[in-house]
Amino acid sequence: MSATEHPNGTTVHGAGEAAVLAVILDALGDHDAKTGSVRVGPGDDAAVLALDGELVITTDAMVEGPDFSLRWSSGYELGWKLAVTNLSDVAAMGAVPIGLTVTVMAPKETNVSLLEQVAQGLRDACATLAPTCEVVGGDLSTSKELAFSVTAVGEMRGLPPVTRDGAQVGDNIAYAGDLGLAALGLRLLRENVSLAGSAKEAELQLAQLWQEHPNPLAAQLAPSPPITLGPVAARAGATSMMDVSDSLSLDAARLCDASGVTFEFESAALGSLTNANADVTLDDMLFGGEDHGLLATFPQNVRLPTGFTKIGTVRERGNSVILDGRVIQPRGWDPYL
Amino acid sequence: MSATEHPNGTTVHGAGEAAVLAVILDALGDHDAKTGSVRVGPGDDAAVLALDGELVITTDAMVEGPDFSLRWSSGYELGWKLAVTNLSDVAAMGAVPIGLTVTVMAPKETNVSLLEQVAQGLRDACATLAPTCEVVGGDLSTSKELAFSVTAVGEMRGLPPVTRDGAQVGDNIAYAGDLGLAALGLRLLRENVSLAGSAKEAELQLAQLWQEHPNPLAAQLAPSPPITLGPVAARAGATSMMDVSDSLSLDAARLCDASGVTFEFESAALGSLTNANADVTLDDMLFGGEDHGLLATFPQNVRLPTGFTKIGTVRERGNSVILDGRVIQPRGWDPYL
Repeated sequence: MSATEHPNGTTVHGAGEAAVLAVILDALGDHDAKTGSVRVGPGDDAAVLALDGELVITTDAMVEGPDFSLRWSSGYELGWKLAVTNLSDVAAMGAVPIGLTVTVMAPKETNVSLLEQVAQGLRDACATLAPTCEVVGGDLSTSKELAFSVTAVGEMRGLPPVTRDGAQVGDNIAYAGDLGLAALGLRLLRENVSLAGSAKEAELQLAQLWQEHPNPLAAQLAPSPPITLGPVAARAGATSMMDVSDSLSLDAARLCDASGVTFEFESAALGSLTNANADVTLDDMLFGGEDHGLLATFPQNVRLPTGFTKIGTVRERGNSVILDGRVIQPRGWDPYL
Repeated sequence: MSATEHPNGTTVHGAGEAAVLAVILDALGDHDAKTGSVRVGPGDDAAVLALDGELVITTDAMVEGPDFSLRWSSGYELGWKLAVTNLSDVAAMGAVPIGLTVTVMAPKETNVSLLEQVAQGLRDACATLAPTCEVVGGDLSTSKELAFSVTAVGEMRGLPPVTRDGAQVGDNIAYAGDLGLAALGLRLLRENVSLAGSAKEAELQLAQLWQEHPNPLAAQLAPSPPITLGPVAARAGATSMMDVSDSLSLDAARLCDASGVTFEFESAALGSLTNANADVTLDDMLFGGEDHGLLATFPQNVRLPTGFTKIGTVRERGNSVILDGRVIQPRGWDPYL
């Protein structure tokens, strides 16, 4: 039995495309009643959305193995995370998310119920974190390994996009959301839930871990970054912004490179972000990833929006990332290494 | 040596994400000089586009094995087809394509040069068929099998979207583009280019086939549907429209179902579409797919736009698809069967 095959379930091969699609559309719910943007929803050649201001678009894929394991994630959590990894990129431009399209690449023995759960996770992540957004279209393909690709679109609503190249020397560096908690969750999963042993054993280990460490597990498997703070930061005058997906050090280095500046972080300030969980280490915060919180810079005279914490100051270009006066060698996630 | 691994090439594993991305962005060319929509191009969290009218969005994936073989397709043709399968869905709403995002899921041993060719194919398909469109973003992931997912966005420019549910009894049914030629190309490839034997032998067989049958091969591997006719049809007053991707009979049945009508095709009219190639059979036209031409209905008093040919008439709901008075059982592509 492969990881995508569950007992007592109808497979996508057994059901066929039309039936699989019907289950997924049902799980997503009725789009007409939810948000105001959708003119034509799923079922036609393309979806049509009304838009307020410029269009923001981003895309992100998740492949079973490198990006997720069904030993660790339920279908629901997987769908949730698929939505979040894209919503956070829209938010990081200062935009309001208005729609997702989802490509499902599934082995023929995949249970329809797994895809139904993924759809429910997508739906609920949008409803919870970005209520102006919903799934508006998608595509079903067959493959040897389970993979998903999501594209998110958003609208600028008259605001200028907040890019990575606008950080100014003297700006405050601020962060909103969990930091390092997803990395702690990944460590706990690696140490406690076997990917190699029996599925039954892994299931028990996972249930035990959820009881003991719900917050880091949720941060890793179904993160809840502050999507609505993206437009708030843009309105407040953020000079640069990005979401932290690969690691604070690596993503900060990219922003510094784009802006031609150095980021100096203060470990005491970073420490204040970990109040929620004492097990989060400085390494988790600097070199872990997947929290998808917002890293932004604001002029010194701007009061930081609620939800943002100051974690450092923008300095002149030199070594790109500094912590308490020491240079940090950025490292984090690279899919091909 | 796997199908994605070429001799004398640098692999994505050897190069790492940043270097792979640099090669791809270089192949795509400078976005600033090309179209007027792009405000923020690749390299930030998301792309930002200016938009004229409502947003149209669609997505489509291609997986090595079910959807393509590198025995048959070059990277360039693959990129071209990836663009086309999405551009045709935007066109089928009556919209003008303005941007593509591309997710690459590639095994670590994939040659960077293959992805470079894919990028060049994406670029040239846009430049040739939809000059207002370009690649604006993407994502690189690792996987066991090579797969791509593309999302296309377009703008309605004040026109109402042409959906599948508007066909009226008495309307003329019209088609623009090749029909059945892609199916003939697939037959020729299956009969003449071995997927199982030696790669060298397949290469020679493929070169021979290209010499003898360039048009059906191009229709299958790098199709050129009339993308610009989508907005033309919308302006002319098309009552319904879709692109034919799975097969004329299957896609027509879907349109009939959405509109509550029957399509009666005339085989003589269909035959006139095959003038370009006498080897195209009626079966190729009815049950093949992948031509991605535009199937549309127009009121009887509307003169068909140049490029569209009348192939039948809309009748009252009954059996959904009829050819010369005989009922046709629709069939075509289903990824899960």
